[in-house]
Amino acid sequence: MIHIRKKPAVLEVHLVRKLCVAAIAILVSSQAGADDDLMNAARRTFKPIPSVVPAVKDNPVTHEKVELGKMLFFDPRISASGIISCNTCHNLGTGGADAGPTSIGHGWQLGPRRAPTVYNAVFNVAQFWDGRAPDLKAQAKGPVQASVEMNATPEHVINTLNSMSDYVVMFKKAFPIEASPVTFDNFAKSIEAFEAVLITPAAPFDQYLEGDPNALNVQQKAGLKLFMETGCSSCHNGINVGGQDYFPFGAVERPSTSLLPTADKGRSAVTKVASDEYVFRAAPLRNVALRPPYFHSGQVWSLKQAVGVMAEVQLDAKLSDKEQNDIVAFLNSLTGQLPKIEYPILPTRTETTPLPSTGK
Amino acid sequence: MIHIRKKPAVLEVHLVRKLCVAAIAILVSSQAGADDDLMNAARRTFKPIPSVVPAVKDNPVTHEKVELGKMLFFDPRISASGIISCNTCHNLGTGGADAGPTSIGHGWQLGPRRAPTVYNAVFNVAQFWDGRAPDLKAQAKGPVQASVEMNATPEHVINTLNSMSDYVVMFKKAFPIEASPVTFDNFAKSIEAFEAVLITPAAPFDQYLEGDPNALNVQQKAGLKLFMETGCSSCHNGINVGGQDYFPFGAVERPSTSLLPTADKGRSAVTKVASDEYVFRAAPLRNVALRPPYFHSGQVWSLKQAVGVMAEVQLDAKLSDKEQNDIVAFLNSLTGQLPKIEYPILPTRTETTPLPSTGK
Repeated sequence: MIHIRKKPAVLEVHLVRKLCVAAIAILVSSQAGADDDLMNAARRTFKPIPSVVPAVKDNPVTHEKVELGKMLFFDPRISASGIISCNTCHNLGTGGADAGPTSIGHGWQLGPRRAPTVYNAVFNVAQFWDGRAPDLKAQAKGPVQASVEMNATPEHVINTLNSMSDYVVMFKKAFPIEASPVTFDNFAKSIEAFEAVLITPAAPFDQYLEGDPNALNVQQKAGLKLFMETGCSSCHNGINVGGQDYFPFGAVERPSTSLLPTADKGRSAVTKVASDEYVFRAAPLRNVALRPPYFHSGQVWSLKQAVGVMAEVQLDAKLSDKEQNDIVAFLNSLTGQLPKIEYPILPTRTETTPLPSTGK
Repeated sequence: MIHIRKKPAVLEVHLVRKLCVAAIAILVSSQAGADDDLMNAARRTFKPIPSVVPAVKDNPVTHEKVELGKMLFFDPRISASGIISCNTCHNLGTGGADAGPTSIGHGWQLGPRRAPTVYNAVFNVAQFWDGRAPDLKAQAKGPVQASVEMNATPEHVINTLNSMSDYVVMFKKAFPIEASPVTFDNFAKSIEAFEAVLITPAAPFDQYLEGDPNALNVQQKAGLKLFMETGCSSCHNGINVGGQDYFPFGAVERPSTSLLPTADKGRSAVTKVASDEYVFRAAPLRNVALRPPYFHSGQVWSLKQAVGVMAEVQLDAKLSDKEQNDIVAFLNSLTGQLPKIEYPILPTRTETTPLPSTGK
């Protein structure tokens, strides 16, 4: 019997095995299909950060401009007090932003909004939370002159730069066809050129978008799926996972006034259109995990909490704890490779350099 | 006649030539002797900056400590406000000091004295203008806690560091035999280790001290000679051309109160000895040309003017314009090669990191 029954048993086992293999193949194929669908959907919605420096409108990014712009970015003597540089509020060591909630400027005044990151800012549709500067060269002129930030004037900047021959030489090299290159415009263009190199490619999510299905783990993929299906990606999309368009903060429910102070009307101050009240540029989420606190008001210190707030006030969605964790895991996959920056040795002030002024 | 007279004439010419050559040889030899004397005198008075990192007492300088110390040096979250780092006042881009006259700290308060440079500070006999800290590890604890500077507490520092696992791991690597290495002492030791690498070798003056007579030009040698003969080097000597001992500011004549404010009694506040009133550590003059303004009060913006003041109030000497220029030329030869520092990417704050506090 044993021998007789053996063959059918073996056959059965073979049959079961075949069926199992087939079933697993169907399952795997189904999972693979779902994975492919997710990757395809992601590729339609987002774009990877390039590994080469992007072109900038009206401002070719040359080595000379980048080197000069780096010095200007780190030079506190651009400010009236002599202690605030671009890097003070856009600290490259802490995600391109400062400690927050909002920035401390000249005279220890608190600014009205959280400092946006300079990393990948070149990819945003426009600059500032309300998009009031069309590009980084326009943006760079703002904080320098804001009384609550660097409290300087274009004249102070130009006098400071002209007082140091090393700077004058660098401007001549960066703008070789101009007779008098030390201008406020060229100051801003140099900073824009430096900021154009502040891109952070090769995040796990970039590798995923480039076709590596293993660049994201299971939880990150679940988070990505949720991020798209819940509707986050309807505003946070494109190369910067945001930063491409303007939306009301509180689309379905008004956030608390600590998150959305009533005094700050957002983009309507720029467009003078009533419907733009409390409208802001969708925050670019590249490297978002590196720079709490969140929102323009900088009052939320946890990325998970920020995700929960956004789901509620923008999408009328109540995410479970697991769902929030999954989305946070996905957001962590947006942290790219930060460029290595050598701290610049700045030209030495001369007797014609404007003196620092700490008063208001 | 012409022919007859030719020979003696030729002989005469030869004789004159020989005499001239001999005379020039004597002059050259005399000049060479004077040059040798100057170099020998300089070598007895000063020492070159070494090109290797010096040993530090009770704190072996390891790669791990230096890397950690660099992060701590640049981390503004050490301060209560989250925006002031060691580098804010000891800016490595501007000679290791800030814009001056004195430093701006927490709440925009003005400190009482000019920030001393961190470059080559490891070679000073003690730290601060009054030498109240015996070494850099003791010094590093001061500004962190000073209400007019970073306004933090050891507890704030330790809580901040413990809240970020990357820091905890780095402390474990830097202090591998300690069970609980995240301490205020080790924080200070790490900063001291980083500051020990902030040395600036290979200045023209170092090359001169190493035996290259052409490393200084004629004016710089004249300035060096004056610097020693006028008496400057009786206080400003050794490896740091100063920083080795304490002397009254106004040894022969009291400087104006803008330069020597009466409220700041100098070292007597440390030693409680009346004769130490208005006594300060002789300023180390390495890289002095990189960091105006001068003196502890930071009211003199020109190195030449500073030289003139010192000659008058310390040495009762009235230097001519040329002599001042010569000494300034010599002081310019003290500018060495500054180390290249990669700007550190800092650990990301977590939900347990203390929040910044901008209030007083």
